[in-house]
Amino acid sequence: MSNTDLATNRIMARQNGIVQPLLTDLYQITMAYAYWKSGKVNDVAVFDLFFRTNPFQGEFTIFAGLEECLKFLQNFHYSDSDIEYLMQILPDNIEPEFFAYLKDLTCKDIKLSAIEEGSVVFPRVPLLRIEGPLIVAQLLETTLLTLVNFASLMATNAARYRMVAGKNVSLLEFGLRRAQGPDGGLSASKYAYVGGFDGTSNVLAGKMFNIPVKGTHAHSFVTSFSTLDDITSVMLRHADSLEQYNMLELSLEWRKRISSIIDVSPEEASDGELAALMSYAIAFPTGFLALVDTYDMKRYNIQGLRHGQRMNGHSGYNSNCGTNVTRISNSTVIRSTYGYSTVERTLRSGLLNFCAVALALNDCGYRAVGIRIDSGDLAYLSVLARSTFEQIAEVFKLPWFSKLTIVASNDINEETILSLNEQGHKIDCFGIGTHLVTCQRQPALGCVYKLVEVNGQPRIKLSQDVGKVTIPGHKEAYRLFGADGHALIDLLQRSSEPAPIIGQKVLCRHPFQESKRAYVIPSKVEHLYKVYWSDGGICISPKPLSEVRERVQSSLRTLRQDIKRNLNPTPYKVAVSDDLYNFIHDLWLQNAPIGELS
Amino acid sequence: MSNTDLATNRIMARQNGIVQPLLTDLYQITMAYAYWKSGKVNDVAVFDLFFRTNPFQGEFTIFAGLEECLKFLQNFHYSDSDIEYLMQILPDNIEPEFFAYLKDLTCKDIKLSAIEEGSVVFPRVPLLRIEGPLIVAQLLETTLLTLVNFASLMATNAARYRMVAGKNVSLLEFGLRRAQGPDGGLSASKYAYVGGFDGTSNVLAGKMFNIPVKGTHAHSFVTSFSTLDDITSVMLRHADSLEQYNMLELSLEWRKRISSIIDVSPEEASDGELAALMSYAIAFPTGFLALVDTYDMKRYNIQGLRHGQRMNGHSGYNSNCGTNVTRISNSTVIRSTYGYSTVERTLRSGLLNFCAVALALNDCGYRAVGIRIDSGDLAYLSVLARSTFEQIAEVFKLPWFSKLTIVASNDINEETILSLNEQGHKIDCFGIGTHLVTCQRQPALGCVYKLVEVNGQPRIKLSQDVGKVTIPGHKEAYRLFGADGHALIDLLQRSSEPAPIIGQKVLCRHPFQESKRAYVIPSKVEHLYKVYWSDGGICISPKPLSEVRERVQSSLRTLRQDIKRNLNPTPYKVAVSDDLYNFIHDLWLQNAPIGELS
Repeated sequence: MSNTDLATNRIMARQNGIVQPLLTDLYQITMAYAYWKSGKVNDVAVFDLFFRTNPFQGEFTIFAGLEECLKFLQNFHYSDSDIEYLMQILPDNIEPEFFAYLKDLTCKDIKLSAIEEGSVVFPRVPLLRIEGPLIVAQLLETTLLTLVNFASLMATNAARYRMVAGKNVSLLEFGLRRAQGPDGGLSASKYAYVGGFDGTSNVLAGKMFNIPVKGTHAHSFVTSFSTLDDITSVMLRHADSLEQYNMLELSLEWRKRISSIIDVSPEEASDGELAALMSYAIAFPTGFLALVDTYDMKRYNIQGLRHGQRMNGHSGYNSNCGTNVTRISNSTVIRSTYGYSTVERTLRSGLLNFCAVALALNDCGYRAVGIRIDSGDLAYLSVLARSTFEQIAEVFKLPWFSKLTIVASNDINEETILSLNEQGHKIDCFGIGTHLVTCQRQPALGCVYKLVEVNGQPRIKLSQDVGKVTIPGHKEAYRLFGADGHALIDLLQRSSEPAPIIGQKVLCRHPFQESKRAYVIPSKVEHLYKVYWSDGGICISPKPLSEVRERVQSSLRTLRQDIKRNLNPTPYKVAVSDDLYNFIHDLWLQNAPIGELS
Repeated sequence: MSNTDLATNRIMARQNGIVQPLLTDLYQITMAYAYWKSGKVNDVAVFDLFFRTNPFQGEFTIFAGLEECLKFLQNFHYSDSDIEYLMQILPDNIEPEFFAYLKDLTCKDIKLSAIEEGSVVFPRVPLLRIEGPLIVAQLLETTLLTLVNFASLMATNAARYRMVAGKNVSLLEFGLRRAQGPDGGLSASKYAYVGGFDGTSNVLAGKMFNIPVKGTHAHSFVTSFSTLDDITSVMLRHADSLEQYNMLELSLEWRKRISSIIDVSPEEASDGELAALMSYAIAFPTGFLALVDTYDMKRYNIQGLRHGQRMNGHSGYNSNCGTNVTRISNSTVIRSTYGYSTVERTLRSGLLNFCAVALALNDCGYRAVGIRIDSGDLAYLSVLARSTFEQIAEVFKLPWFSKLTIVASNDINEETILSLNEQGHKIDCFGIGTHLVTCQRQPALGCVYKLVEVNGQPRIKLSQDVGKVTIPGHKEAYRLFGADGHALIDLLQRSSEPAPIIGQKVLCRHPFQESKRAYVIPSKVEHLYKVYWSDGGICISPKPLSEVRERVQSSLRTLRQDIKRNLNPTPYKVAVSDDLYNFIHDLWLQNAPIGELS
C-alpha cells in the first residue's frame, strides 16, 4: 500500500468515525432498552428499507449507499465513552446489565440482503432487507436510512442530469460551497460521480474516492490583474525546442491580427483580462481553460446599468438575446440589426483575449483547452464562441481550434439543460453546483424502515393512506424482462414461493387494487437480492465506485425510454404475486375489524 | 478533563479531519499556482464573505459557522499525502518549489474579522473580512463558504420555526435520517439548536455538542407487540414504598374504569398497543411518553380503506375533521353528528391505552410525561387529547394530568405551525425533521467571497445585475440603534472614516440609488467587526454553543416585529456612508466606459 493509500485510508477512517452506533435517534436506544426489559432479547425480526415515491416527479430511483451501510455494520460497536454518555442521558433507573449488553453488541447475528448498488429501483421494492435480533435490527434503523437516503437521492439526481445532457457532454460537480457542510459536500461529490458525472471540483472528494478533479480559475483571478503592468513574468519555453518565447508580445500581436475576426478592436478588450489569461496560460500551458466573461461591463452605459437589473432568475439561458440563436448558422454569426448586446460584447472581449493567448500558446507548441462561460445566454454565447473558433481554425489552418472545449456554468438545473438542448447549444461541458447538490426539486428521499415480521409472524402497518400500508412478511423480489431486453415489471413474492421461470407465465397483481392483474411471460428473470452481510462479515465485497457508476448506466439502459423521460414519464410497474396478494389482504382483514357508521 | 470529554474530543477531531485544506475546489489551488508563478506571492488582498439575499423570503439571516472557520484556520496545513496527491493531479510541469511553498503554508499572516456568531445579519454586509497574502486568502474561499453557508441557513431556518412556534412551545429536531448524510445530519442538529431548538433526537450530536437529546419510541415498537400474551414482565416497584405492583392488572382495570370518559369500549382498543405501552412504561416509569396513533385502522371499514387514499400532501393539519375544531370548547368534546372520524377513533383507542397505563403508573408513584401524535389533524387531535386529560384530571383529582405533554410530529413546516396556531392547538412540543434539515423553502444560502482590495487598491466586480456589483475596498460596518433599542440600519463605511457618533446625525445612502438618502441620529452604535484571528492564533475564543444560542434570541429581539414577520416582512435597511457611496461610483465610472448604441 502506497503512502497515499495509507493517508487516504486515514482520512476515510476519520470520516467513518462519525458513522457509528450513536449516529442515531435516541428512540432507537430507548426502544432497545424497552425490548430488552420486556424479555425480547431473543426475538428475531425482519425489517424492510424502502421508499414510497420516486423523487423529482420521476419514475425511477438509483439505489446507492450500500457500501457505506456495510462499513457501518462492520464497525458497529459502542465504545466505553458511548456507554458512559448513554448512562448520563438515560434515566437513572436503567438496569446496568443493559449497558453491559450494549457494550458487547455487534452485528454478528444480522443478515443483510440488498439490491446491487447502482441499480434502478422502484417504490415499495425493499432496497435492503435486515434480518436478525429485533433489538439489533431496530438499532440500525436511523443510520441505514441516513446512509441510503441522501446517497440514493444524489445518485438519482445526477443520473437525471446525465440523461438530459446526453452522453457526449461532460458533467462536472461544482457544489461544495453550497452543500450541507463538509461531509454533505463530500457525499454529494461521491454520488454525483456514481450517478454519471465525470468529475468534481472537490479536491478532497477526488483524493478520498478517486474521482477526477477539475477546475481552472475564478473571476477573482481575473480581477486581481488591472493592467498589463501587473504581469511580472512573460517568458514561456517552447514545448519541443525549449526556446524562450515572449508570451506578452505574441499575445498582443495575435490580438491585433484577430480583432477583425472577432469584431472587437484591441483597445476595447480589457488589458487586465489579457494579463490574467496570459499569466494563467504561462502557469498551465497544457491546461489553458479560461473564464471569458469577467469584464461584462466593458462598454456598457452606466445609466443603463443603474436601471437595468437583469431579469432572469434561476438560469442564464433566457436573457435578452436568446432569439438571436435562430439566425445563426453553424459557421457564421450574423450581427443583429440592433447591435450587440452587452453580454455578447463581454464575450467578444473575453474571446478576443482568450484567442490571442491561445494562438500565442500555439506558437510555443501548446494547444489551449477552451473557455468557460458563467453568465448570460449560454446557448447563444456558446454558438458565438464555437463559430469564432471555427473561423479562426479556418483562417489559420488550425483544425483543432474549432474543437476547443466550451464549459458553461451559472445556476444550471435540469430545465436549463433541456432548454439549451432545444436552442441548439454548442457546449461541451456543464459545471453544476447548487441545484445538483441540494437536490433543488426535492431535497430528501423518503426511505422508511418497516418491521414486516417478528418471530416468523408477519407484521402489517395499516394506514388510512393506502400508500403507507406496508407489505408484510419475508419477501423476495424479481425483475422480469421482455424479449427486447427491457425490464417489464418488478415482482414481490413470499420467500416460500418458487422463483418465476423463464418462458412461463406469472400472474402479477397490483398490491392493493383487486382488478389490476396481468400475466407476464419473462424472457429473463433477475433475482434482485443478494446477501451482502452475514455471520459477522461482508459476503460480497462492495465494487469500486467506477463499477457502481457503470452499473447505473447499464441498469438505466434496461428501462424503456418513456419511463425515463423528463416530462410525464410512464410509471414502471411493481407487482405482487397472487400468493402475496392474498396473504396481504387476509392479514389486512384480520387486523382491520368492520367499521361502523353512526 | 474527564474520559467523556477526551472521547468527545477524539470524535470531534475525527470530524474536523475532513475540514482541511483539500476540502476545496481545485481552481483555488490552480489559481494559487498561477499567482505564485506570476510573482504575486507578496500581494496582499482583502476578501469579503457576504450574501446577497435573505433566505426563505424573509428579511433577516442568522450568522453561524464562525467557530468552525476559526478551527479550520488553526488546523490549516497540507500534509505530505496532500502534497503527493496534488502532484499527482496537477500537470507535470508545475515547478516543484510551488509544492514546497504549499507545504509550509499556514494562516499565520491572515487576519479574520467577523460579526459575532449568532447575530442577525443582512445582505451585502460582510460576515467575514479576510485580509492577508492574496494566495492564502484565495485558498480559504471554498471551505469558509462551505462552513458558513449551511450553518447560517440552518440557524436561520430554526430561528424562523422558533418565531412561529412561540417561546412556550418546545421544538425538537428529528431530521437525521433525511439530512445530507451523516455530517449533514450533525450540522443540522448543531445549528438547529443554535437557532432556537430545544433538543435533538441525534444522539451523536448530543454527545459532540452537548445538546439535550430526546426521544421515546416508534410505531415499530408498538407493532412488535400483537396481544397481551406478548408481555413477559408485568411487575413494577412503587417509586417510594418499593412494593411490587402488577402493571397489567392495574392497566386493565383502569382501562375499564375510564372507557366511558374516553368513549371507547375496552374491547375496541388494541391489546397489542396496551402491551407495548405498558412494557415501555415499565422500562421508563419516569419517562413515559407514548405514541398513540399506531393502530389507526382499528374499526375502519376495509372497503373505505381501499378507495380512501388520504388527500393531504405535506402536512397533516388539513384532513377531513379540521372543521370540527370550532365546535370544541376548552374542556368538552362534542361528538359530531356524523360520528367520529377514523383519526379520531384511532386517537381514542391510543388515548384509552395511554391513560390506562398512565393511571396505573400513578398507582406506582410515577407521573407519566405525555403523548406523541404523528398523523391526522394535529390541531383537532391535540384539543381532543387535552380535553380528555382535563376530564381525567377532574374526575380522579389529579391536577397534573391536565398538564401532560402533547408532542406532535409528521412533516411539520413553518406553514403547518402557523395554521395550527390559527386553529388553536394544544400542542406543547413539535418534533420537526425533513423540512427543517433540508431547508425545504430554500436549500442553499448563496454566500459569496469577493476580492475587494489588492495591495491597497480597491477592486470592484461590475455586473449587469446591480445586485451582483461588489462594494469595493476595506470597510467597516456599524449597526445604528434608535432610542427604543431597535436596530435602525446597518451602515458600511470606508475603514478610513471615523465611526458614527451617538447623538450625531449620519447621512446613510442607498448603495446604488442616488436619490435614496436619510439622516439617522443613532442612540447607540455597534461596531460589527471584531478581529477573531490574527498573528497565527485565535484572538477571541469562540463562545460555547449555548451562549451563541442565547445571542440569536437577544439579537433577534433588537429587530422590529415587522422585519421578522412571516408574511411580507419589511426589509431592514443596509446603507453606505456618503464617502463610500462616492468611492463606489467613482470606481464604477472609471471601470465602465461610456457605451454606444448601434
